[in-house]
Amino acid sequence: MGGLRGRLITFEGVDGAGKSTQTALTAAALGQRGYDVLVTREPGGTRLSEEIRRLLLDPRFSEMAGSTEALLYASARSQLVREVILPALEAGRVVLCDRFVDSSLAYQGYGRGISIDLLYTVNAFALDDLGPFFTILFDLASEQGLERSETRESDRLEQESASFHQRVRDGYLALAAAAPERIRVVDGSGTPAEVQTRVWAQLLTFLEGREQGAPFTAPEPGQ
Amino acid sequence: MGGLRGRLITFEGVDGAGKSTQTALTAAALGQRGYDVLVTREPGGTRLSEEIRRLLLDPRFSEMAGSTEALLYASARSQLVREVILPALEAGRVVLCDRFVDSSLAYQGYGRGISIDLLYTVNAFALDDLGPFFTILFDLASEQGLERSETRESDRLEQESASFHQRVRDGYLALAAAAPERIRVVDGSGTPAEVQTRVWAQLLTFLEGREQGAPFTAPEPGQ
Repeated sequence: MGGLRGRLITFEGVDGAGKSTQTALTAAALGQRGYDVLVTREPGGTRLSEEIRRLLLDPRFSEMAGSTEALLYASARSQLVREVILPALEAGRVVLCDRFVDSSLAYQGYGRGISIDLLYTVNAFALDDLGPFFTILFDLASEQGLERSETRESDRLEQESASFHQRVRDGYLALAAAAPERIRVVDGSGTPAEVQTRVWAQLLTFLEGREQGAPFTAPEPGQ
Repeated sequence: MGGLRGRLITFEGVDGAGKSTQTALTAAALGQRGYDVLVTREPGGTRLSEEIRRLLLDPRFSEMAGSTEALLYASARSQLVREVILPALEAGRVVLCDRFVDSSLAYQGYGRGISIDLLYTVNAFALDDLGPFFTILFDLASEQGLERSETRESDRLEQESASFHQRVRDGYLALAAAAPERIRVVDGSGTPAEVQTRVWAQLLTFLEGREQGAPFTAPEPGQ
């Protein structure tokens, strides 16, 4: 990780919190300012990871065990990191990722009750030596997020109950509280332009190098 | 795991060592003796795991990272254990599995050089509370195995180098040395009937309950 090195910024939050819209707006704004930007998403972003995504989101696989789901997300992530993210960072690019490792802890851990400690170990394996990154967490009352996402076709995960989505939201906030150097909470309510203003306020110090973000660390050591 | 509980027997070894043939012969012999037998295989054995198998063996995915491969095997295993193996054991059946968790340690660990300790953790997550099982390791000079398997269409893994297959064979033998209560080495040379005689000599004590096998444990603790 010597010399020129890019920056990784991940966007997290419950369904409908505005991640994809804000990822696109941020990419456009960065491009206008002369940054070399790469936009990707999870699960997916590589040929193989998109195949894994297809399995993960297919509503026909209702029998999928929570541990299977967690391992499939980690496998898609492992490939994305090695094939796309690490090479782009080495080339000095700014990588924006719509969902990343915190989604696994929030959804499989806090949402489904899988051990946070085990999820951390599995995902540390998937991330290898990724180094520090920066995360914007869009927070929105989960019922607001569900209302927004109801306008879209629902996939396997979106069919979960309201209490599941509430646990995911609470989990995200717990992750942010445990990793304040990396995860910044942004209010996801209001218009896309209003939210984008809040995103920029958080991103500037990271882009200008005054903050470094932080590597992925165990949210609850020793649990 | 109270009351009536079946037995899990896994068959391991390098390609061409005779696993599939011996799995079928053993199933037939067990059936003749009145055992309720279920035969399955890895990766695969469930609708979802067979989809994961298709990704793992597809020669077009030459870009697949070692860690991605290890996580995909673990995800297929996680689903097989929960959907097929645990219910069959609860029902008192004898489950024969053509490849299982030792394949991941031998191929991804000893073969590709991924940390055995990390592979153990990921796979312990996939196996959950599986309990004790018994493993027959067919040993064969790896060049003999490759000769046998050359008559079949080669998949992504079979296209690896001879030194890779040698490391896998040596790795299997190291795993057996570290877990003698669970893993029994059987000479894979000779005719299928000759090998089957050797398999039965090892299986009888386990089937009759005089030996219990052992759970999956870290082969190199603290590594």
